[in-house]
Amino acid sequence: MLKFEVHKREKNTMARLGLLQTSHGTIETPVFMPVGTQATVKAMTPDELKDIGAKIILSNTYHLYLRPGHELIEKAGGLHKFMSWNGSILTDSGGFQIFSLNKLRNISEDGVEFISHLDGSRHFIGPEENMRIQNALGADIIMAFDECVPYPADYDYVKNSMELTLKWAKRCKESHKRPDEQALFGIVQGGTYRDLREESARRTVDLDFPGYAIGGLSVGEEKELMYEVIEYTTPLLPFDKPRYLMGVGSPDALIEGVIRGIDMFDCVLPTRIARNGTVMTSHGKLVIRNAEYAEDFRPLDEECDCYACRNFSRAYIRHLFKAGEILAARLATIHNLYFLMKLMEKIRQAIKEDRLLEFRKEFFTKYGYVY
Amino acid sequence: MLKFEVHKREKNTMARLGLLQTSHGTIETPVFMPVGTQATVKAMTPDELKDIGAKIILSNTYHLYLRPGHELIEKAGGLHKFMSWNGSILTDSGGFQIFSLNKLRNISEDGVEFISHLDGSRHFIGPEENMRIQNALGADIIMAFDECVPYPADYDYVKNSMELTLKWAKRCKESHKRPDEQALFGIVQGGTYRDLREESARRTVDLDFPGYAIGGLSVGEEKELMYEVIEYTTPLLPFDKPRYLMGVGSPDALIEGVIRGIDMFDCVLPTRIARNGTVMTSHGKLVIRNAEYAEDFRPLDEECDCYACRNFSRAYIRHLFKAGEILAARLATIHNLYFLMKLMEKIRQAIKEDRLLEFRKEFFTKYGYVY
Ligand SMILES: [Zn+2]
Ligand SMILES: [Zn+2]
Repeated sequence: MLKFEVHKREKNTMARLGLLQTSHGTIETPVFMPVGTQATVKAMTPDELKDIGAKIILSNTYHLYLRPGHELIEKAGGLHKFMSWNGSILTDSGGFQIFSLNKLRNISEDGVEFISHLDGSRHFIGPEENMRIQNALGADIIMAFDECVPYPADYDYVKNSMELTLKWAKRCKESHKRPDEQALFGIVQGGTYRDLREESARRTVDLDFPGYAIGGLSVGEEKELMYEVIEYTTPLLPFDKPRYLMGVGSPDALIEGVIRGIDMFDCVLPTRIARNGTVMTSHGKLVIRNAEYAEDFRPLDEECDCYACRNFSRAYIRHLFKAGEILAARLATIHNLYFLMKLMEKIRQAIKEDRLLEFRKEFFTKYGYVY
Repeated sequence: MLKFEVHKREKNTMARLGLLQTSHGTIETPVFMPVGTQATVKAMTPDELKDIGAKIILSNTYHLYLRPGHELIEKAGGLHKFMSWNGSILTDSGGFQIFSLNKLRNISEDGVEFISHLDGSRHFIGPEENMRIQNALGADIIMAFDECVPYPADYDYVKNSMELTLKWAKRCKESHKRPDEQALFGIVQGGTYRDLREESARRTVDLDFPGYAIGGLSVGEEKELMYEVIEYTTPLLPFDKPRYLMGVGSPDALIEGVIRGIDMFDCVLPTRIARNGTVMTSHGKLVIRNAEYAEDFRPLDEECDCYACRNFSRAYIRHLFKAGEILAARLATIHNLYFLMKLMEKIRQAIKEDRLLEFRKEFFTKYGYVY
C-alpha cells in the first residue's frame, strides 16, 4: 500500500509538503533517502538510522541480486527482515548499475545481458526478471526497469532509449506480482532534450503509476541544465503523486530540486564523502584530514547536535582518520546523514512558512555556495 | 585515586570478588578490559562500550605517543576527554610494543632507542620519559615501564632483564608526577623461571605499588606453562591489591586466570578476531564466512542477547563480511566483547556461589574446549 497526500504548496515556488504512507510508516516529504547499497547503509546500524530521523532508505537491486541473491533475501523474509530495518525501503531497478558498471552489456528489446562485476558470470535481466527480483526483495516502493542514458548522448539514441524504457515500464507494470504491497514507480527519461522529456513524462503518466521518478539526471551534465530539465518536467507529472529525483543529494541540489517540485531524493554522496573524511557543515565542506584541524577541539559543525558533534572534536576525528580507524567513517557518516536530515527538516519548515527562497539565500550565503 | 577491596574469596580456588574504584567509577572484579589501542576500541563508540557493560578499557601508550602524540591529548584535556570515554582507563607502558614492533631498538640502562613503525623516525623512551607520557595521557591506572622478554629466552637474559625492569620500576615510581590521580602498577617479570618470577614478585612488591601486573606471559609459551607461572606468582602478591594478567583474553585463559587469583585482564583477541569474521559463542568459535552459514537465519549465538544477536542473522552477518561492509566488523565486535563481558559476569556469579570449578566444567563442556 502507498498513500500520498500533498497538504501544503509553497507560495513562491513549486515546492510542496506531503505525507507518504507505506505499510512501514509515514514519511514527511520532501525527504532524503540514505542509500544502503548492499542491504546496509555503510557504517550505520538500523538503530542509528532511526536516531538521525531516517524513515526510508534506498537499496540497490543490482547489488543484492548478485550478492547475496534475491532468493536468499526472500527466504530470510524479505529485505526489511534480512537487514532488520522496519522503516520503509525503496529499491531501484538496477538499470543504472547495469549500464554504468558493465561495459560488456548487450541490450535488446527483451532486456540486458551483462557480466557480473563480482565474478564475471553472465546474467540476463529484462522487465519481467526485474519485477521478479524486486518482488522477492519486498521493498515498499520499487522502480520500473529502465535504460539510464549517459550524458552527453545523441538525440536519436536518447529517443530510442526512451521508447525502450516506455515499453519496459508497461511490461514491468504487467508482470508486477505484488501491486498491493509494493508501489511501482515509473521513470521519466529523455536525457536533456525537452521534447523527449515531455513525451516521456506524458506517456509514462499515461501508464498510470502510483509515483514517478525523474531518471537520467546527475550523470555529468551541468547543474543548471539539470535544474532546467526538472523545472519543465515536474509540471507534467500528476500533482497528487510523489515525484522522485534519482541520484541527487548535494545540499544545493536538494534545495533547488524541492523548489522545482521534487518530493524524494537519494544519493550516496553523504556516506561516500564521509568515508573519505569530508563532512558537510553549515559553513560548507570540511576536509577533516587537513593539518589545520590537528589541534582544533571544536566539533565538526558547531551548529550540529548529532552524536559525533555532541561527543567528539575535529582533532579526535582527524586522528581517527589518520589512524585508519573504523570509528572515523562511522562518525563522519552519522554527521553527514544527520546534516542532510536536518536540512530537509529546515526545508520543510521553510515551505510551511512560505519562505523557501529566503531560506535558500540564507543557506547558500553561509554555506559559501555561489549560484 | 584508586581503592581496591576484596569482598569475597571463592572456597575452592584462589579466585576472589573485588571492587576497584577509580575517579571514573567502580569496577567489579574479576574484569576484562577491552583494548582501545589508538584511543578507540576498534569499531565501537564509547556509548556502545557502556551498553555492553564495559567499565574500564585499556589504551596503548606506544601508539598514542607516536600518533596523535601525548602533548596533543594533554591539550585536549586528557585521554578520557579526547576519546569521550568517561569510564576508567588503564594505559600500558608501551614496553611490549617497543620490544615487539621494533627490530632495531637499542636498549640500555637509561631506556630504549627505537624507530617508529609509522614513519621511521627515531625515539628514546626511558622510565622518566614514559611517566611524562602516561601522566600527560591521564589514565586512571598506568603501568611501569618494563622490558617484555620474548619466549623462549635464556635464563641469564631473563635475569638481567628482570633487574633492569626492577630499576626502571623504581625510577617510574620516583618520576611519577600524579600519584594521587593515577595509580601506578608494578609489573612482575621473570619469564618462565620460577626463581626469577618469585624474586621479581618479592622485589616489585617491596617497591610498594597500588597494584601489580604479571607481564611477559601469553607471548608464545604453552598455556599450561602460563597457568603454572600464574599459580606460583599470585600468592606472592599482596592479597589486598589488584592483580592484572597482561595480554590474556581467550575464554579458557580468563577462567583459568581467575581460578589462580587474577582480577584484571586485557586482550585484543575478541576485537581482532571479530574483524576477521570469527565470533565466540557458547558452543565455541564460529567462522561466519563459512558457506554453511549462508542460509542460517539463527543469531550468532542463540543464548546471546547482544545487539547483534537480537537483530541480525548469521546469514546477514556473513553477507556483510562477504560484501566487505563496515557493519560486519561492528556487529562481530559488539558480540565478542559482550560475550566476554557476560562470561566475566558468570565467573563473578560462580565465585559468589563458590562453584567456579563446576562452572569451568560446564563452560568448557559446552564450549568444546578439551583441557
Ligand atoms: Zn554533527
Ligand atoms: Zn551476541
